[in-house]
Amino acid sequence: MTPRFSVWGITGIPEVAVGDDLVALIADAVAAQAETDPNLALQAGDILVVTSKIVSKSEGMQVPAAERERAIAEDTVRVVAERVHPGGTFRIVETRQGLVMAAAGIDMSNVPDGTALRLPLDPDASALALCAGLRQRLGIDIAIIITDTIGRAWRVGQTDMAIGAAGMQLTDDLRGAVDANGRPLHVTQAVIADEIAGAADLVKGKTSNIPVAVVRGLGRYVQGLDAPGARTLTRTGDDDMFRFGSAEAYRLGYQAALAELKAASKQRQD
Amino acid sequence: MTPRFSVWGITGIPEVAVGDDLVALIADAVAAQAETDPNLALQAGDILVVTSKIVSKSEGMQVPAAERERAIAEDTVRVVAERVHPGGTFRIVETRQGLVMAAAGIDMSNVPDGTALRLPLDPDASALALCAGLRQRLGIDIAIIITDTIGRAWRVGQTDMAIGAAGMQLTDDLRGAVDANGRPLHVTQAVIADEIAGAADLVKGKTSNIPVAVVRGLGRYVQGLDAPGARTLTRTGDDDMFRFGSAEAYRLGYQAALAELKAASKQRQD
Repeated sequence: MTPRFSVWGITGIPEVAVGDDLVALIADAVAAQAETDPNLALQAGDILVVTSKIVSKSEGMQVPAAERERAIAEDTVRVVAERVHPGGTFRIVETRQGLVMAAAGIDMSNVPDGTALRLPLDPDASALALCAGLRQRLGIDIAIIITDTIGRAWRVGQTDMAIGAAGMQLTDDLRGAVDANGRPLHVTQAVIADEIAGAADLVKGKTSNIPVAVVRGLGRYVQGLDAPGARTLTRTGDDDMFRFGSAEAYRLGYQAALAELKAASKQRQD
Repeated sequence: MTPRFSVWGITGIPEVAVGDDLVALIADAVAAQAETDPNLALQAGDILVVTSKIVSKSEGMQVPAAERERAIAEDTVRVVAERVHPGGTFRIVETRQGLVMAAAGIDMSNVPDGTALRLPLDPDASALALCAGLRQRLGIDIAIIITDTIGRAWRVGQTDMAIGAAGMQLTDDLRGAVDANGRPLHVTQAVIADEIAGAADLVKGKTSNIPVAVVRGLGRYVQGLDAPGARTLTRTGDDDMFRFGSAEAYRLGYQAALAELKAASKQRQD
């Protein structure tokens, strides 16, 4: 058997406004698509990958552009690294969602003029509500991944990653598993949710109006609504070897040495 | 038009040995698959995603397991971060390929007992040879991505990324582009090569014997053999805000402060 899956975009989802019912918007768009091609009707095991932008819009996370800086500060748990440019300060922060990203994920593209858009406050809760609603409406078990576009250390550009999820297994945990020759695997935890998020970006894109993609053929990962969310994919705290940018950590070390010497010198003088 | 693509694994590729002709192995496996399903014959615009492991094996990059540490040192340009565990030292390094990853990408799974496997020395050159060879043999323009499994800062686990590539555009460079409302895009460079690498991992997996996947439907990214390779996706040097782990950078700052004070104190005494 040749393992395979396919990915396509759901077209015809209108511009989303505060309070819109995403379950209805998505289900209606899928139904319209299925009229021209019955294969596009959702099936059990399908994974729906939803751009966080429409979730934020439906949840009223727009702020006036003038309040962008305040919103970034509100959504920031701590600053990880920053660099001053002629045009301003570029800041990588840990967000309230546990993500490490530029400007706390607050975006001014694909939103109405004069506004900025925050991330959903709790993307896993948003995913769960969407997943439960679609399962109930359609009578089949689908799964939801909510994505945002995030930069990576040591790589150029950005890829889409899973910031919220419901109803599916998010990693292939291979710790303790063996390879085809029976030898322990070096790789321990393949993050399929991020790989699916990236795959969906290839049909959603950034300049089109396709905020939701369907991934069919990976139904083996679909689980109950009690499956852990995407918050479990974030690595923060002591386990994070890159808790600060190099310049920031260097400065902390420099200041610590100065403070220690000052204290020691004061002790000698006393 | 609904944008869509599909991904499947090429089955029947035998265990690869030093000197094996990957062009022939892949083309033969595809031909055998196409006998049972003609749709699986390669078409112009298909992207082949190849696990680096079979490239390394064909290029003779195996080393005896006892020489693993020496091989890691040879493939390491510099140590980025390390952490001592009861079982040894976990070391994240920049490799000769410009990648930042654990143990310089040297792996002991899916290789014969008693051996370890280094990454291809120049994965872009490997991809180019494979791409040119398959284009010539098949008479159609396909593209090649060579992948490895790499951890990320701030995220658990690993995803597959592009470490070599030929015959395709690797990023959607959106700098200067506008969204559906005509506003400048926040996201600047979507790294489609990494998103395709991750998508292919979903059919290749780690425990199966499927080292190559086909991605069909993204032919718009296929280009000439002179397209830049995956080395262009790495970010090293001054542009890298996470050049060192936090602990390492802290220590450098601490030591710098001590050295400066010592020099100043010596100057006063002189």
